[in-house]
Amino acid sequence: MNNVICTVDVVLLTIKDERLSVALLKREREPYRGVAALPGGFIHAEDNDARDAALRVLNEKTRIEAPYLEQLATFSGPARDPRGWSISVTYYALVSFDVIERAGHPDIKLANVDQLTNLPFDHRGIIETAVARLRSKSQYSSLPCYLAGEAFTLPHLQRIYEALMGEPLNKVSFRRKIKEMAMLEILEGQFDSAGAHRPAQLHRLKPELRERLTLLERGL
Amino acid sequence: MNNVICTVDVVLLTIKDERLSVALLKREREPYRGVAALPGGFIHAEDNDARDAALRVLNEKTRIEAPYLEQLATFSGPARDPRGWSISVTYYALVSFDVIERAGHPDIKLANVDQLTNLPFDHRGIIETAVARLRSKSQYSSLPCYLAGEAFTLPHLQRIYEALMGEPLNKVSFRRKIKEMAMLEILEGQFDSAGAHRPAQLHRLKPELRERLTLLERGL
Repeated sequence: MNNVICTVDVVLLTIKDERLSVALLKREREPYRGVAALPGGFIHAEDNDARDAALRVLNEKTRIEAPYLEQLATFSGPARDPRGWSISVTYYALVSFDVIERAGHPDIKLANVDQLTNLPFDHRGIIETAVARLRSKSQYSSLPCYLAGEAFTLPHLQRIYEALMGEPLNKVSFRRKIKEMAMLEILEGQFDSAGAHRPAQLHRLKPELRERLTLLERGL
Repeated sequence: MNNVICTVDVVLLTIKDERLSVALLKREREPYRGVAALPGGFIHAEDNDARDAALRVLNEKTRIEAPYLEQLATFSGPARDPRGWSISVTYYALVSFDVIERAGHPDIKLANVDQLTNLPFDHRGIIETAVARLRSKSQYSSLPCYLAGEAFTLPHLQRIYEALMGEPLNKVSFRRKIKEMAMLEILEGQFDSAGAHRPAQLHRLKPELRERLTLLERGL
């Protein structure tokens, strides 16, 4: 078959107010013009592959560059897009909330993933698939660190894991597991002095792990 | 971009002689005519989605129907197919060796996944991705049961898990984990009397689990 519509869509996830949230953008064109949807677009002949297209589209539409990004799944069929038989190679990307703030795009709306309203195409299913993937991988990997920003404290990281897993975690066992994954390094002499407690040590993800997950054999 | 080449490819895996093996077929057309490759083909306008296309193509090319089949990943770019910018939505399928034998297609060749020779396109990378996915999921799920056939003994199933995981498993702990997954049922009065030992009880996967994985929280 010729002329399959080939697109990419990106589920950009962040933690806002301790809630997992997805970035939605008003569509500039038909179909569904003006409706909030996932940032997405056509694959171009100049793209090296679908991943490259996803990074380009994300940057064009949200001004965000080089987030942690992973292929999610491909959605396809004659009915998901009113223009015809279509394929969307979808990706999920993780950033800290301050990355979205700094990008400063006026039209990005963050929606709590547990309270999604009407979405065009099959975007609800795509988001649900991304959230399920993230939550199931969170228990066994360093994935949530990509939501924590450049520098973070261990209590902040624990709140992110808790937001993803939907339950409080024991502090001692959480810290043991994090140590076991050997994915963080201390930022010598740097502390977060916000909050009521004594200044907390800042950490960051080891630079060599920026694009590679660390796995935890037995889970949190 | 118009005219992206949209295909599906299927990594059909089985256990032959206690080795994980992949089904390869001689290509009937250019490019790479006559070369052994993954069964694959174009998506058709009549397909309901890429999964439907994968099942159709697998059946047309290997005569195998309705195996356990799961989306693997999508491979894309301007260089992977000499005909132009292409997308391949890939799937992996699991069957027992007797299903391939019964299908009786004369041109299927089974290749040990650890001893692959030259393959066209990016098929080697696709197979490696499928094998890594299967092996990593085997430790935590009922996935290997789909390689065991309709009825099987527990020693046979253990050998399949061992072939995938590349190491011997303790029999007592293996049986405890299998019981924990609650995925099998006993075939009353049916035994396998092949082999030197006393006849062994036959089991099967619970019918409701034919297309749905059971997960094991702590791994084997």
